[in-house]
Amino acid sequence: MPTLSPLAAELPELPPVAGVRFAAAAAGIRYQGRTDLVLAELAPGTTVAGVFTRNRCPGAPIDWCRAALAGGRARALVVNAGNANVFTGAAGREATRATAEAAAALLGADPGEIFLGSTGVIGEVLPYARIVAALPALHARLSADAWVDAARGIMTTDTFPKASTRTATLGGTTVRITGIAKGSGMIAPDMATMLCFVFTDAALPAPVLQALLGAGTAASFNRTTVDSDTSTSDTVLLFATGAAANDPTAELGDFAAALNEVLLDLALQVVRDGEGAQKFIRIDVGGAVDDASAQRVALAVANSPLVKTAIAGEDANWGRIVMAVGKAGEPADRDLLSIAVGGTWMARRGGVVPDYDEAPVVAHMRGRDIHIEIDLGLGHGRNTAWTCDLTHGYIDINGSYRS
Amino acid sequence: MPTLSPLAAELPELPPVAGVRFAAAAAGIRYQGRTDLVLAELAPGTTVAGVFTRNRCPGAPIDWCRAALAGGRARALVVNAGNANVFTGAAGREATRATAEAAAALLGADPGEIFLGSTGVIGEVLPYARIVAALPALHARLSADAWVDAARGIMTTDTFPKASTRTATLGGTTVRITGIAKGSGMIAPDMATMLCFVFTDAALPAPVLQALLGAGTAASFNRTTVDSDTSTSDTVLLFATGAAANDPTAELGDFAAALNEVLLDLALQVVRDGEGAQKFIRIDVGGAVDDASAQRVALAVANSPLVKTAIAGEDANWGRIVMAVGKAGEPADRDLLSIAVGGTWMARRGGVVPDYDEAPVVAHMRGRDIHIEIDLGLGHGRNTAWTCDLTHGYIDINGSYRS
Repeated sequence: MPTLSPLAAELPELPPVAGVRFAAAAAGIRYQGRTDLVLAELAPGTTVAGVFTRNRCPGAPIDWCRAALAGGRARALVVNAGNANVFTGAAGREATRATAEAAAALLGADPGEIFLGSTGVIGEVLPYARIVAALPALHARLSADAWVDAARGIMTTDTFPKASTRTATLGGTTVRITGIAKGSGMIAPDMATMLCFVFTDAALPAPVLQALLGAGTAASFNRTTVDSDTSTSDTVLLFATGAAANDPTAELGDFAAALNEVLLDLALQVVRDGEGAQKFIRIDVGGAVDDASAQRVALAVANSPLVKTAIAGEDANWGRIVMAVGKAGEPADRDLLSIAVGGTWMARRGGVVPDYDEAPVVAHMRGRDIHIEIDLGLGHGRNTAWTCDLTHGYIDINGSYRS
Repeated sequence: MPTLSPLAAELPELPPVAGVRFAAAAAGIRYQGRTDLVLAELAPGTTVAGVFTRNRCPGAPIDWCRAALAGGRARALVVNAGNANVFTGAAGREATRATAEAAAALLGADPGEIFLGSTGVIGEVLPYARIVAALPALHARLSADAWVDAARGIMTTDTFPKASTRTATLGGTTVRITGIAKGSGMIAPDMATMLCFVFTDAALPAPVLQALLGAGTAASFNRTTVDSDTSTSDTVLLFATGAAANDPTAELGDFAAALNEVLLDLALQVVRDGEGAQKFIRIDVGGAVDDASAQRVALAVANSPLVKTAIAGEDANWGRIVMAVGKAGEPADRDLLSIAVGGTWMARRGGVVPDYDEAPVVAHMRGRDIHIEIDLGLGHGRNTAWTCDLTHGYIDINGSYRS
C-alpha cells in the first residue's frame, strides 16, 4: 500500500446528484482485496460529452467511448482498475463490447449508451468475464450516496480518493456538479493516465456539454503535468442527467464557471497525488508574447527533470529555470527575463538580483507549496502550469519489477 | 567525487594532432584541487566550424563563439569548468571579452580568433580574473601530448574523461581527427550541457567544415538524450589546423565518415556518463513513414521517464513503450505496432506475442546494454536514439542542495 501523499486533499462532502447512482465491488481484475470495479447508473435522457487522450495508441475503451459519444446519450458508466485494456487487439474490442452489452442488458439500455473506463497495466487481456459476472450484484445495490465508494473504486496507484463538488444556477434553477478523478503517473497535458467523471443534474444538450468540457479541460487538466508522459487511457466524461429540469437554453456563465472549478480542483488533486510527489508546484508565466506561448513556457518548466529534482532538494535553482525557459522554443530574451520564487525576485532582467534576501526563499523552498513566477518581459501573455517535484519516490514506484 | 559510471568507456591512445597543443590547470574557478581550465593553442591558419545549443537563453560564451565563427579562423580555445557564465548580463559579456583578449595577447592573435567554452553553475558571475591570471603559465607549458589533461580539465559532473580518435584519407594524405567531450546532465537533442571539441590536422575551408559538422552532429549528438533538458551552453567546435597540407579540394567521403564516427563515439560516451546511468539504451525505430518521423518516435521513447524507470528496474515493460510511441504525435497505428527487447519480439502487430520466451528478455534486461526495437509497420523510415536509464542516482545528483 503506498504511503499517503503529504499533499493529499480531504474528500469534500458529496451530496447526491439527482439521476446518478453508484456501486463498487472487488471483482479481482488484478488487485486482491480491494474495490476495482465501479458502476454508475444514469437516468434515462442523460446527455454526455467526452475528451480523450491524444496518444496515437489509445486503449480499446477510448475507441468505444469515442464511438458511443456520437449518440450523445448515456445510461451507465463502467470503470475498472488494474487493467487498462490497451494494446490488446481483437480481445480488447471484444472486452469492451461484452462489458457494454452486459451493462445495457441490466439497465434495459442500448450498448451505445454505456461508457467505459479502464486503467492499469497495458498489454494484458482484460478478464472481462469477471466484470460481466460482477455487474448484476452491483446493479442490485446502486445507491445515490456511494460517491466515496466510486472515488475509491477507480484508484490505481493513487494514495487518496479525489472528488470535487459545486452548485451553479442555470436559468433560476440550482444544479449540482460533482466529479471524481484518479491519477497519478503518466500525467501530461492532453490528458494523463487519468480518468475523470463529472456528473450534473443539469439539463443540457450534448453539444453544449461538449463545448463546455473542451474549454474546461484546456484550462485545467491540460495545464498540469506530473512526468510528461501521456497515457493511452486518459478520459474525461461529463454526464448531465437533466433531473434538475432547468431551462436548457439558459445563460451558461455560472454553470461554466462552476464546472471549470470542479475540473481544476480535480486536476490539481491529481498533481497532488503525482507519483512520489513531496511538493506541489505552481508556475506563473507573464510577459509572454501571448497566452499560448506563456502556457508552453510554463509547461516546459513544469516538465524539466532538472527543475523538478532541484525543488525536491529544496534548492531555489533559478539557473535551471532559465534553462527550461530557453528550451521551450518560445520567444524569450535572456536579458529581459525575471524570476521569482515564493514572491522574492531573485533575477531581474537577465541577471541575478544583487544581495536579494535569501531567507524567505529558503523558508519557502522548505514548504509543501512552491510558487515560481517568470516574467519574460516581452508582452502581456500569461498562463499557469502546475506540477510536482521529481523524487526518489517516483523512481521507487516506477522502477520496481512488475509483480 | 562521483562514482565511476558502470558504463564508462576507456580512453583510447591519443597521438598528437599536428598544430594543436594543450595545457590544463587548477584555476580555482569553483572546484578546489582539480583542473578546471584548459587552453588549446591552434596553429596559424586554423579554420573552424561550430554548432550550438538552440536554447533561447544561451550563455555569454555561446554569443561570443557565434560572433567569432563569422571570421572562420581560430588560434585558441579556452575552456573552464564550474561556472557556465550563463544569465550573467553585462558581467558575462565582459568576462568573455577579457578572457579572449588575454589569450589573444599571449598568442599574438586577434580576440576574434579565440573560442570559449564554459560549463557549470548558471547565474553566477564568472571570476574571469582567475582565468586571465592563469593563462600565462598555461601558455608556457603547452604540449602536443596533453590530451588526457584536456579531456579531464573540461569535466564537471562527468565520472570519466571522453575522447575519440580516427584517421582518414584526404586526397591521398592521411589526416587525424581527435575529439574530446564532456557531459553529463541536461543532455537532449539539439545539444546538451555538453561541450565537444574536435581537432584535425586536415586543411579544409571553414564552410566545408561547417557543412560536415552540421551533418555529423545531426547524426550523433542530436540523436542522444539523457533527461530531455537542453542546456544553455552546448557547443561543438571543429578545428582544422591544415598542418597535413592535403589537397583542400579532395573528395570528402572518407573524412566525413571518420568525423561522424568520432562525433558518434563521443555522443555515446556522454550518454554512458548520463547522471546516475546504470544502463545504456539503444532504441531502433523502423517502419515509420520517413526517417525524420522515426527519429521523433525514437526520441519520445528515449525521453519517457516511465520507460527509463522501467529499464532501471529491469522490467521489459513494453506497455510503456507503446505509450511513448503514441505520445510522440507521429503517424502510428496501434494495430500495426511491433516491439522487441534484446532481439525477442514481445508484441507483434498490435498484440502481445502469446507464449513468447521470456527467459532471454529477462536475461537481457539484467545486462548493461539494452536494445529496444520498434516496428511501426507503416513505411520504410528508420532511425535510432540512445539514452540511459532514470535512476535514484539522477535524483541524488540533481536533487541535492547546492553547495
